[in-house]
Amino acid sequence: MSKDFGITPRGENYADWYNELVIKADLADYSAVRGCMVIKPHGYAMWELMQGALDGLFKATGHVNAYFPLFIPKSFFEKEAEHVDGFAKECAVVTHHRLKANPDGPGLIPDPAAELEEPLIVRPTSETIIWNTYKKWIQSYRDLPLLVNQWANVVRWEMRTRLFLRTAEFLWQEGHTAHATYDEAEQEALTILHQCYGRFVEEWMAVPVIKGVKSEGEKFPGADHTYTMEALTQDVRSIQAGTSHHLGQNFAKAFDVTYQSAEGKLEHVYATSWGVSTRLVGTLIMAHSDDKGLVAPPRLAPIQVVIVPMGRDEETRTKTHGASDTLAQQLREMSYGGLPIRVHIDKREKESPGFKYNHWEMRGVCVRVEIGPRDLEAGAVVVARRDTGDKQTLTLDETTAAKIADLLPEIQQALYDRALAFREANTHRVDTWEEFAKAFEGEGGGGFVVAHWDGTQETEDAIAEKTKATIRCIPLEPLRSEDAQPGVCVYSGKPSKRRVVFAKAY
Amino acid sequence: MSKDFGITPRGENYADWYNELVIKADLADYSAVRGCMVIKPHGYAMWELMQGALDGLFKATGHVNAYFPLFIPKSFFEKEAEHVDGFAKECAVVTHHRLKANPDGPGLIPDPAAELEEPLIVRPTSETIIWNTYKKWIQSYRDLPLLVNQWANVVRWEMRTRLFLRTAEFLWQEGHTAHATYDEAEQEALTILHQCYGRFVEEWMAVPVIKGVKSEGEKFPGADHTYTMEALTQDVRSIQAGTSHHLGQNFAKAFDVTYQSAEGKLEHVYATSWGVSTRLVGTLIMAHSDDKGLVAPPRLAPIQVVIVPMGRDEETRTKTHGASDTLAQQLREMSYGGLPIRVHIDKREKESPGFKYNHWEMRGVCVRVEIGPRDLEAGAVVVARRDTGDKQTLTLDETTAAKIADLLPEIQQALYDRALAFREANTHRVDTWEEFAKAFEGEGGGGFVVAHWDGTQETEDAIAEKTKATIRCIPLEPLRSEDAQPGVCVYSGKPSKRRVVFAKAY
Repeated sequence: MSKDFGITPRGENYADWYNELVIKADLADYSAVRGCMVIKPHGYAMWELMQGALDGLFKATGHVNAYFPLFIPKSFFEKEAEHVDGFAKECAVVTHHRLKANPDGPGLIPDPAAELEEPLIVRPTSETIIWNTYKKWIQSYRDLPLLVNQWANVVRWEMRTRLFLRTAEFLWQEGHTAHATYDEAEQEALTILHQCYGRFVEEWMAVPVIKGVKSEGEKFPGADHTYTMEALTQDVRSIQAGTSHHLGQNFAKAFDVTYQSAEGKLEHVYATSWGVSTRLVGTLIMAHSDDKGLVAPPRLAPIQVVIVPMGRDEETRTKTHGASDTLAQQLREMSYGGLPIRVHIDKREKESPGFKYNHWEMRGVCVRVEIGPRDLEAGAVVVARRDTGDKQTLTLDETTAAKIADLLPEIQQALYDRALAFREANTHRVDTWEEFAKAFEGEGGGGFVVAHWDGTQETEDAIAEKTKATIRCIPLEPLRSEDAQPGVCVYSGKPSKRRVVFAKAY
Repeated sequence: MSKDFGITPRGENYADWYNELVIKADLADYSAVRGCMVIKPHGYAMWELMQGALDGLFKATGHVNAYFPLFIPKSFFEKEAEHVDGFAKECAVVTHHRLKANPDGPGLIPDPAAELEEPLIVRPTSETIIWNTYKKWIQSYRDLPLLVNQWANVVRWEMRTRLFLRTAEFLWQEGHTAHATYDEAEQEALTILHQCYGRFVEEWMAVPVIKGVKSEGEKFPGADHTYTMEALTQDVRSIQAGTSHHLGQNFAKAFDVTYQSAEGKLEHVYATSWGVSTRLVGTLIMAHSDDKGLVAPPRLAPIQVVIVPMGRDEETRTKTHGASDTLAQQLREMSYGGLPIRVHIDKREKESPGFKYNHWEMRGVCVRVEIGPRDLEAGAVVVARRDTGDKQTLTLDETTAAKIADLLPEIQQALYDRALAFREANTHRVDTWEEFAKAFEGEGGGGFVVAHWDGTQETEDAIAEKTKATIRCIPLEPLRSEDAQPGVCVYSGKPSKRRVVFAKAY
């Protein structure tokens, strides 16, 4: 492998592997602004595919998109007490609306005459500004439910950042819905979890998730309860892939949003909010990729098939390029997952075939088609799978494109199966504190540890302090039926109703 | 017309008409943050259709999307002198990264211990941060051209704001390209103007535009020259619908971006940038709408066909609802402009037909289908066009859906034709200062005034001061061949090479 392409192997240093992969696969880059990343075209194309799929799932479940302001008046954060603690701390604060020439030296300074009366916060999440708006929009039960989503950028001033996983600015969608009853809001939170997020992560990202409820200590600030999906990375940590919050009447009360019921009574509205972000790109990378670079599931791969025609002279290239164009055209007329197959032909003349193979393997292209002069004369092409590395020779005829297209759902399923097998191999049931502590020993420790817990915050905190493992979720469906049986807490020995899922988390 | 729906007629007060229309057509709303708007679902759906069409045109001309940080370090604005003057003045300045409890009272304050070493500016446009990044991406001629677009929000601290037309925060796309030569950059700026923006505004928005070059006084700060498209509103003012800038080597020099040419020489890169924004929604409203509300061109109408079934009793409604469902299904299986036809059935029981007609007329639905019990028994439906108000009775059979679908391109063309005729009726050629000044007298003055100009900034400034009219553009193609003939400046009497277009502008 050429030096240009080499990345640190996962086994050597997982964090370095991840960071180098993100850069070398052209997914994202560091920027001049601390904690903010540049999403490069290849990475952004993956995010666009994610957005397209998620947006379709939201709309299919009755949601519409809107857009709310980037800035939130400081006073709004002061209204919902828990929310203040959770979000109004590390954030970007706008205090001035003008720069002026520095009177004491070169350059520009914030103009003291243009200080804002009330500072504005760059939104870390939009519950407050949206509920302030909903107060105007909601009067009667006929205005409900309100099922609104927004695609936006948000800013949380993180001290330790990592590309895609934790950045000061990130892109996301945030849904904010309003309902007449608790039950309707509950139904909405679960619809998002199952019909939108769950389907997306499993069917598009090929990542199996455990769906469950967050403990009190891990729930969203201001929520009644939070649903989550948790995935396992290859360094056996848990990563939160998306959350859906039942907010109860907390925000409706903080912003005084009431509606007149069919019976003429004035009631506070029930709410949900839910979001997934560019963090999903990080999750996807961590779930499937290998020491050669990105492995992208076909439904989200910006390029699904790369064709590499060979030939050292013009005459040979005319033939291999021609065959490439024909095959690409046939593939582009076919579709997978409702979209035309995404094909690229690498006709660069100054790069060797080996260089090109590495180049596209690094960038996660699912299938490579090698069209060499000798194979072509024999009426054949070589097809290589990115996920397994398997190569096969296919006769070049009118069925070739269809055979290549058929590999895409096959790879999609294989990636899911592999990730599921990996998760199962790294899910452990333990019953004693000794086993529990041992499971999380060392840096890379744990996987999913399914254990009994007494249900108290105190125990959760003590476990986190001793092992760095936290409760990732209380599964909605037990992973195994035995998990739903009562037992005794692995830490306190007190009674436990069922097992919950612990892990070290990203 | 019921009071709920009434808006001020255009003839009475055009500004009030516009503002009331935006609110009552559910397109946008004021927010709690000064100068920032909330884009409501109906307005956002129109923006999404615009985005989809534009994004397709960008990709068809070889562009890719990426995403750059929201924040720009203050020092970046200090690098390109003209750009500073143009953009680093009225902007949102982030000075702190934390809020803390106010030690002297209730609430939160920016934490003095968390003041940023260097203030960050919320991007008013992204040339500086992007060219800082391109420095890393561009080394060799093989890295060129770089054809990147981003969809993003930007902030310019405007003192006088109007929904969609001028807001502190707005949504837009900004393309930023890098090229080896001046000619390639010039070609790019023109490709965007003609193949992307020009096609979009004329074919999707049904708005005729004059394409031209901006005068020095009106060009983008930091550009070599700026191309623009100018449309005429119904109050006969000009509105800039999109701009494409040839930046020369200005930003490459300010950020020291060079490439090694095929001959091994180190050269500065040439650049373009180009953008259109949510202002286009305002342009669209101004171009076509009437005193009943929004008139949306079919290709961008969130709802193209609304079906209003009638019936006072359950039995009748079962029949009219059934016929509505069947017709809607047939329409949804048809497409217009490459997308399925967008149909809504208004089954509300508590609202009268008249209420519903006004409701959907206000929101710009192109075609209304009324399904009443008597018509239905006679095997007919009534179809009304939003643009003309024309009503016709159609026999309800297997051809009805197709006949309704055929109205969409017809309306699209009719709107364009009407807007073009309006523009032509409001384009005047004048040769004396007396005529010129008279054309712009009064508040609503002018339309497009095509007149000779001596080419000096001095004259442009003097004309603007006396009449409030500015040079909207120097047309690329003369509107009439005579416009390309030399003459004498309408203001100074000095020689003029050709006529240019003056107007009062939004």
